[in-house]
Amino acid sequence: MIIHVVNPNSTAAMTEKARLAAVACAAPGTRIMAGNPRGTPASIEGHADEAVAVPAMLALIAEAEAEGADAHVIACFDDPGLHAAREIAEGPVIGICQAGMQVAMSIAARFSIVTTLPRSVPIIEDLVAAYGAGHHCRRVRAADLEVLALESDPVDAYRKIAAQIRMARDEDGAEAVVLGCAGMTDLADRLARETGIPVIESVTAAVKLAEALAAAQFRTSKVGSYAFPRQKAGGAAQGLVANLAH
Amino acid sequence: MIIHVVNPNSTAAMTEKARLAAVACAAPGTRIMAGNPRGTPASIEGHADEAVAVPAMLALIAEAEAEGADAHVIACFDDPGLHAAREIAEGPVIGICQAGMQVAMSIAARFSIVTTLPRSVPIIEDLVAAYGAGHHCRRVRAADLEVLALESDPVDAYRKIAAQIRMARDEDGAEAVVLGCAGMTDLADRLARETGIPVIESVTAAVKLAEALAAAQFRTSKVGSYAFPRQKAGGAAQGLVANLAH
Amino acid sequence: MIIHVVNPNSTAAMTEKARLAAVACAAPGTRIMAGNPRGTPASIEGHADEAVAVPAMLALIAEAEAEGADAHVIACFDDPGLHAAREIAEGPVIGICQAGMQVAMSIAARFSIVTTLPRSVPIIEDLVAAYGAGHHCRRVRAADLEVLALESDPVDAYRKIAAQIRMARDEDGAEAVVLGCAGMTDLADRLARETGIPVIESVTAAVKLAEALAAAQFRTSKVGSYAFPRQKAGGAAQGLVANLAH
Amino acid sequence: MIIHVVNPNSTAAMTEKARLAAVACAAPGTRIMAGNPRGTPASIEGHADEAVAVPAMLALIAEAEAEGADAHVIACFDDPGLHAAREIAEGPVIGICQAGMQVAMSIAARFSIVTTLPRSVPIIEDLVAAYGAGHHCRRVRAADLEVLALESDPVDAYRKIAAQIRMARDEDGAEAVVLGCAGMTDLADRLARETGIPVIESVTAAVKLAEALAAAQFRTSKVGSYAFPRQKAGGAAQGLVANLAH
Amino acid sequence: MIIHVVNPNSTAAMTEKARLAAVACAAPGTRIMAGNPRGTPASIEGHADEAVAVPAMLALIAEAEAEGADAHVIACFDDPGLHAAREIAEGPVIGICQAGMQVAMSIAARFSIVTTLPRSVPIIEDLVAAYGAGHHCRRVRAADLEVLALESDPVDAYRKIAAQIRMARDEDGAEAVVLGCAGMTDLADRLARETGIPVIESVTAAVKLAEALAAAQFRTSKVGSYAFPRQKAGGAAQGLVANLAH
Amino acid sequence: MIIHVVNPNSTAAMTEKARLAAVACAAPGTRIMAGNPRGTPASIEGHADEAVAVPAMLALIAEAEAEGADAHVIACFDDPGLHAAREIAEGPVIGICQAGMQVAMSIAARFSIVTTLPRSVPIIEDLVAAYGAGHHCRRVRAADLEVLALESDPVDAYRKIAAQIRMARDEDGAEAVVLGCAGMTDLADRLARETGIPVIESVTAAVKLAEALAAAQFRTSKVGSYAFPRQKAGGAAQGLVANLAH
Repeated sequence: MIIHVVNPNSTAAMTEKARLAAVACAAPGTRIMAGNPRGTPASIEGHADEAVAVPAMLALIAEAEAEGADAHVIACFDDPGLHAAREIAEGPVIGICQAGMQVAMSIAARFSIVTTLPRSVPIIEDLVAAYGAGHHCRRVRAADLEVLALESDPVDAYRKIAAQIRMARDEDGAEAVVLGCAGMTDLADRLARETGIPVIESVTAAVKLAEALAAAQFRTSKVGSYAFPRQKAGGAAQGLVANLAH
Repeated sequence: MIIHVVNPNSTAAMTEKARLAAVACAAPGTRIMAGNPRGTPASIEGHADEAVAVPAMLALIAEAEAEGADAHVIACFDDPGLHAAREIAEGPVIGICQAGMQVAMSIAARFSIVTTLPRSVPIIEDLVAAYGAGHHCRRVRAADLEVLALESDPVDAYRKIAAQIRMARDEDGAEAVVLGCAGMTDLADRLARETGIPVIESVTAAVKLAEALAAAQFRTSKVGSYAFPRQKAGGAAQGLVANLAH
Repeated sequence: MIIHVVNPNSTAAMTEKARLAAVACAAPGTRIMAGNPRGTPASIEGHADEAVAVPAMLALIAEAEAEGADAHVIACFDDPGLHAAREIAEGPVIGICQAGMQVAMSIAARFSIVTTLPRSVPIIEDLVAAYGAGHHCRRVRAADLEVLALESDPVDAYRKIAAQIRMARDEDGAEAVVLGCAGMTDLADRLARETGIPVIESVTAAVKLAEALAAAQFRTSKVGSYAFPRQKAGGAAQGLVANLAH
Repeated sequence: MIIHVVNPNSTAAMTEKARLAAVACAAPGTRIMAGNPRGTPASIEGHADEAVAVPAMLALIAEAEAEGADAHVIACFDDPGLHAAREIAEGPVIGICQAGMQVAMSIAARFSIVTTLPRSVPIIEDLVAAYGAGHHCRRVRAADLEVLALESDPVDAYRKIAAQIRMARDEDGAEAVVLGCAGMTDLADRLARETGIPVIESVTAAVKLAEALAAAQFRTSKVGSYAFPRQKAGGAAQGLVANLAH
Repeated sequence: MIIHVVNPNSTAAMTEKARLAAVACAAPGTRIMAGNPRGTPASIEGHADEAVAVPAMLALIAEAEAEGADAHVIACFDDPGLHAAREIAEGPVIGICQAGMQVAMSIAARFSIVTTLPRSVPIIEDLVAAYGAGHHCRRVRAADLEVLALESDPVDAYRKIAAQIRMARDEDGAEAVVLGCAGMTDLADRLARETGIPVIESVTAAVKLAEALAAAQFRTSKVGSYAFPRQKAGGAAQGLVANLAH
Repeated sequence: MIIHVVNPNSTAAMTEKARLAAVACAAPGTRIMAGNPRGTPASIEGHADEAVAVPAMLALIAEAEAEGADAHVIACFDDPGLHAAREIAEGPVIGICQAGMQVAMSIAARFSIVTTLPRSVPIIEDLVAAYGAGHHCRRVRAADLEVLALESDPVDAYRKIAAQIRMARDEDGAEAVVLGCAGMTDLADRLARETGIPVIESVTAAVKLAEALAAAQFRTSKVGSYAFPRQKAGGAAQGLVANLAH
């Protein structure tokens, strides 16, 4: 089985981190295909960054599916372009935010999320509501870190994230914490050990759910709103193919 | 005052229709600046069409603001890129879907929406929920029309839309109907007259709300999630400017 | 165009303040007609004050409409009698609470409200829920001021309101604040300047939305629950006319 | 114990019907005090009718409490003035709509409501939402009857109501039906017998809950938003007393 | 009338306390029949304790109904087995949690709940949501007490509960507090007196509502999901009877 | 890896069907351990059947965990005892209802559920709400089949279920259908093929999610409400062990 992990931003180091997390958790027969578009933002911090990154990310998904990918993971916690990707692909498309929450709702009655920048809090709260987790999610917390600081100053980043997890546990009554950024994959185990509560690493969650769905032949419904884009001048169907042709 | 009306798809005839609707309702001192990107889909029918249209639309918004636009109207009922546009602009950005619903909630206790294709129904339902109109919106109905049929076969389109409005009135208990496509602007008056209930034309709703906000100096908050995109390699801030440079 | 601004309480100084705010924001061709009933409470602080003020306020709305008003603004943040007024009038009727929230939801992803007395908090929270703003409204805060203190001790009032706005910004993550009392119109600009976040003055918001709807011929639906009151002994239709006859 | 049943409309025949229902279900030691204001609408059909009836109804509640009433029942299914009445009274105030739903939620997993006019449907739906019964209430149905037809043409009224109850049972999956008008008290037993599902008569529900709360000394909280109205010129506190003085 | 009060845990002292509370509030003609199963947990602290206690509790309900009980009260704040009991019984079955909230929503606009252990908070929050009280319930608070400490160290228990009630009043804006454990019946009066806000004792609330429903002949609907269990091998119908036969 | 599939009812044929479905979808290294308690109802049709089946089912879960099971699947669509099981076990516990919905929400924007008896509809609707799928689930449909008819008259059962799936597709706008009973495992493929929309077999969904969580070491949180039951006389901790001792 081939699982395609796509990082919508253009920072190769983050793609590599996501790839390693995926490889580490993948089942024996699974091959991880990981990549990122070129020219998209170095990190996704807000709706506009998402918007400019999505078309190239969709092209990679179309390309990966043509090359045999059985399922796709969007490795950015805002789940940018998730619904559009489901129109493009037949294999299941898993967003790490939705996956992290589904796991959290299966192992804990209440959870909190810890992300990077405060400006992402309303974006993630909107996803919490859209995915039906509003009752179970205590709070979306920001460690007040820019995304790239996870690479450039990992010691400070760890400290700030751990502090938020402890507050989630003690003030929110969270029974588990979901890590709200694809760049935090390498911190999860230590955070869980040192804070004493389950810490859900979202890339891992998504890769395992993608494998599960693909293995069971649960594929994206093409009846209704996730049907392939309609053919027309400039439409997504052609646009993405044209994009690939470059 | 300058109101910028942007049609994210590339069909100039639809842009012209939206422009005419805007001009028709604009206040004496208002100038309408209307446009559409080139190369985007001929119509927006689904999330993927939205995704590929948004970056070029955002570039037009940045450009219009640089040229003095006081407020922006996104003339597509899916409100594509609305949150991203609010990050890009300082003037208020009004989506015609949100505007149509705000008007509906001010003049009727219950309303329905009539759009084109069934595949757009879940997309619009998600907006209904996101904008807090779930209690007031009886139903999102599709006339089972592709968007461009509004141009190519207007007689059939009128008949199908009118039939849905009558069902909204008689079966849903709708007290008003919101037209769920920017391409229906020219039909609203006749539909209202012949069905006997208020029919809210969404481009008009949005232009008037944009004028109202701009006149009162209500501008997009730059504190929090609608702050300008952060500067970084490939980020939205630069990306859109680069886009304009072409 | 004539916009009728009605203050349901009987304090003429508050009516004058609302009138001035309306005049200040009105479009060139708009005439503001402002008034308040006699004999109603000096301020509206709770459901019972609302209840005893509403009939006389409805009579003024009927009278204003007979005199040519194109739209009506209820200048009290509890939006007392809003639905009843929509039954009485054909022109749109805008409550300053609903208007303030609609503006807030168009320029900010999250907002808080600052009102006067703690006893009004649940009343406003109920409106937040009824208008579908529960997801966007972080918190309804009270400055612990009686309404008339806005007139009698404006320095203290300003200080208390500013303190709540700062807490909304820093603790709630509010990206804008809605002023939750018609008596705060004169404080908005200074509050925005000194706190650094958008402060939405609700009378202004309502007047501009009323103008927008009236200009676009969006009138209250008379199909369904906002139909004119049914004729019968003692019914609202007659009662209000009788009231006017005095 | 004294239970005060107040019919806000001015139709004495409906007051008498409510009084008889109350007497029929009252406990041995309970005295029913029933009345209606003069000059209010002959029936409550919409928000404006409610608004003009409420002040006089509140005065009767204040008067009844002064005369020793232990609890109050507002015998109109729109629960007009319920929150205001709770500010006025120390004894518990029970609305027949809220009471009917509380009983329904205790004996059935899903219920529907059958009221008179279609224009009341959104009003009652808003109460369903406000009282937290949205998940349990399948549908609010209207028999398309004006309220006074319950008196003037009871045979036709019975037939129309029974038809709606059967549809609630067969189409909605309702497990019980709440009668949505105080004028239907005399029909409940026959409706239940002939349709085979529990039919909840709301005046009875409210009288029994009022007795229960009063007996257990559960009184309206005077801490917070149901505190007595504040004293001031024209305020509800004085206004209602003045009203009583007439 | 016979009201059956069943304590699902096996601590006879708690049963006796609930019985005394029931007798104290019961109407003149009411006989209280109280009991608890043997062999169930000494206290109900979590879902698993509930699960192992419910079958024996259901058998007692079936037995009590056979002996003439007119209504049943489940005297545990988690309302364990409430829906199952409604399938078993024809008389109304009242859970003390649902009853406490119904009373709270009738006498206060906002309330908080004070329970024993933190682990019960999500359980009660789920009930708050299921009963439609999410908008009215400010917060579910835990006094950090194990249930049996109410018996073994009542002085400390009183102090901790009182502290939480004061915080509910001052920090949550609660206008009333519901006691979230059947073992707190004897504390309510003193707590109300000393904290100055209404304190709702839930066993009392439930007994009075049970009396009210039974007196008015409101019985559990046997149409739909509360119909008697279907007959089959090992099914609840037989299982409970068999259980009684021992 | 060992996945424990427990059927709470006592019909061995249904256990075997679930076991076969689990084996068919299990990954190479997974061993399926399947069982059912003795003496529980032959089928679970309502809350009372659930209640009497759960204690013995919990004992089997405790036993399986002691024997090395890595995760547990409760193979009954009401997810009976799910939260209690999570207190008992350290491995993740997956309910087939929650799993089916999580898969549905990942591959379709809207889905419907088809179950057996109408009396189960409110039970499943409550789970839809509790799991946060209310916005995505169009409707819970019943084929009007008793559970055991799936074994005794499979031809008729197939026909009735297929008819409901077609209605879900055509009337509800469902983009996928979740099979709402563990006894329908063998029908899924043919139903999908003949109706043309994705049909989600819930035992398969749950087994794959259980494998995914177990492989990634996502284990039930023991911080908070899923902590092991507290030790005490008759408590769940001891009760279940005692149960196993027999």
